Amino acid sequence: MAKYKMILDLDTGIDDALALAYALADQDCDLIGIIGSYGNVLVEQGTQNSLDLLSLLGASGVPVYEGFSHSSTTSSFTVQPVSARIHGNNGVANLEINRASTKVEKQSSIDFLIDAVHKYKKDLLLVPTGPLTNLAAAIKKDPTITKLIGHVTLMGGALTVPGNVSPVSEANIHQDPEAANDVFQSDIPLTMVGLDVTTRTLLTNKETAIWRNLKTKSGSVYADLVDYYIDAYKETNPHLNGCALHDPLAVAAALEPKLLETIYLNMKVDTQKPYEGRTIGDETRLNLPATTTQAAVNVDVDRFVTKFMERLTTLFEEH
Amino acid sequence: MAKYKMILDLDTGIDDALALAYALADQDCDLIGIIGSYGNVLVEQGTQNSLDLLSLLGASGVPVYEGFSHSSTTSSFTVQPVSARIHGNNGVANLEINRASTKVEKQSSIDFLIDAVHKYKKDLLLVPTGPLTNLAAAIKKDPTITKLIGHVTLMGGALTVPGNVSPVSEANIHQDPEAANDVFQSDIPLTMVGLDVTTRTLLTNKETAIWRNLKTKSGSVYADLVDYYIDAYKETNPHLNGCALHDPLAVAAALEPKLLETIYLNMKVDTQKPYEGRTIGDETRLNLPATTTQAAVNVDVDRFVTKFMERLTTLFEEH
Repeated sequence: MAKYKMILDLDTGIDDALALAYALADQDCDLIGIIGSYGNVLVEQGTQNSLDLLSLLGASGVPVYEGFSHSSTTSSFTVQPVSARIHGNNGVANLEINRASTKVEKQSSIDFLIDAVHKYKKDLLLVPTGPLTNLAAAIKKDPTITKLIGHVTLMGGALTVPGNVSPVSEANIHQDPEAANDVFQSDIPLTMVGLDVTTRTLLTNKETAIWRNLKTKSGSVYADLVDYYIDAYKETNPHLNGCALHDPLAVAAALEPKLLETIYLNMKVDTQKPYEGRTIGDETRLNLPATTTQAAVNVDVDRFVTKFMERLTTLFEEH
Repeated sequence: MAKYKMILDLDTGIDDALALAYALADQDCDLIGIIGSYGNVLVEQGTQNSLDLLSLLGASGVPVYEGFSHSSTTSSFTVQPVSARIHGNNGVANLEINRASTKVEKQSSIDFLIDAVHKYKKDLLLVPTGPLTNLAAAIKKDPTITKLIGHVTLMGGALTVPGNVSPVSEANIHQDPEAANDVFQSDIPLTMVGLDVTTRTLLTNKETAIWRNLKTKSGSVYADLVDYYIDAYKETNPHLNGCALHDPLAVAAALEPKLLETIYLNMKVDTQKPYEGRTIGDETRLNLPATTTQAAVNVDVDRFVTKFMERLTTLFEEH
C-alpha cells in the first residue's frame, strides 16, 4: 500500500508531464488528484494535457480539477513566447496526443484541495510545479490547512543561483509573486525545490533513446516530448548539457526528502520591480527559529536520475 | 605557539576594530600585518585607525600597510553618508583615540601580501573585511598565490538574504564588484561570511557594559565604540536587537571553521545595474565540482558570541 497520498498542481508542459509520470510510477505514491494551473500553457490546455497523459499512462481514474486561470493580482494571463518555445504551443511539444475520454471535474480545485487536507492530514503531500496561486487561495479560504497537511514540496524559486526569467526570478514564482509570498510567509511545512538543484539534474537523448526503444505508445510519446525539450534547452540554456528535470525532482523529493540537502530559512518573495519574484531569506525573521520552510541547496544527482529512469522506464514498458 | 599566521585587510570602522581585537586576543592567531583599505572610511583614515587601535591594545609591533584608495574601476572614492552614520565620520565613533607613535609601512601592501603567502603558505590566513580590491590586485600580480595560501575568509556578500546597500548587494562587495568577481572566479580557497550569518550574531549594551566595568583604557574605548554602533543599528536595522558582529565573525571563523555551516558553490558577482554587487551561484559553473568556494549559510551563534566575549574581555582587562 502506498505510504502517501499526493496531489499535483501542474501547468502541464513537458517536465510537468514527467512529474505526473513519476507520481504514477512510484509505489510509495497514491496520486489522488491533479489541479490544473496556468503558466507553461493556459489553464484549459494544461488541464486537458493532464487528462490526456493520464489516459496514455492507464490512469484515467485520477481526477483532474481546473485551478485559477491567472495570477492573484491580474485578470488574465498570456503564455510567454519562451514558454511556448520550451514546451511547444500546446505544452506537449506540439504532439497530438490521443484525447482522453475523461473530463475535468466539476468541483472547485480549491475545495478539492481543502477537503483532501482534512481527510488525509499528515499523509497528504502537495507538489505544486507551477504558480502558487491555487495554494495561496486555499490557505486564504481555510487557514487551518497549514497545520494539517503533511508537506508541500514545490518546484520554483532560485535562492543561491540566478533566476530564469530575470537575473533574480524563476518563472513559476514570477507568475504570481504575491501568492508565492503569502505561501512562504505562512507556517505551512514547505520545501522549495528551486533552480539551485533542478538545473543539476539533467536528462539527455541517451535516456530518451531507452524509452523510444521500448516500442510502446507511452515510451514513444515521452521520448518525443523530452527530445523536443532537450532541443529547446540547447537554445535557451547552452551551458547545460541536457534538459533540467525541474518538476519530477520535486515529486521525487516529496517522496524521499533525503535526495536533497536543505537549509531551514524563513523566506519571502519580493513583489516590486526590478526584483519581483525573487525568493530570498526574510531579514526581519532571520533570527526567529526557522522551522517550517526549507530551501534545497544540493541534490544527490545520481540517486535521483537512477530512480527517475527506473520508475519511468518501468511505467512506459506497461503502456 | 600560534597555529596560524593572519593578515587582516580592514577598512577600519567599528566592527573592523572588533575584528582586529579578536585577532590579537586569540591564542591560535599570530597577526603578522594589517592592510588598510577604503570603505567605511578613506584609506588614510582606516590605516591610521588600525595603527591607533594596535597601540591601544599593546600591539604596536604589528605592521600596517596602506592598500588601494579606491576601487579597481574608479579613480577616487567618497565615503557614503550611511557609512559615516554607522561608524562615525572618523570610523571610530568620532572618538579621539590616542595617536600611535608608529607609522604606516613603506612597502606596498600588495607585495607584503604576496611575500607573506610565499613565506607562510598553508599557515597563512587572510581575512578581508572590506572591498576585495587589494586581494584581486595581488592575485593579478602573482596568480600563483591562489594555490599557495591557506585560506581566505572574507566578510562580505549576501547569498540567502537581501543586501544592505541594495536589495541584492552587500556594502563591501558593492564597493568593487569587478574585483570581487575576479576573486570569486579564481581558484583561491575562499569562505564567504556574508550577511546570511553576520546578521545573526548580535551584541547589545549588556555586553559593552561588561567592558566598561573593567575600568581599563581599552575596555572603555571599545565600550564607547560599540555603544555608538548599537545606536546606529537601532536606526538603520530596527528589526535587529543589537549590532551585527560582521567582521569579528570572519576572523573567528577563519580560526575555527566549524563555527559555520557552509555550502560549496561556484560563485560570481554581478557587475551590471540594477544587480551590481550581488553574490550568487555561477549558473555556468553549477555542474562543475565546487571545491574552493564556500558560502556560510548558518552559524553557531552561542559558541561564537561566547568565544568573542571571552577573548575580547580578557584582552581589554590587560590594556
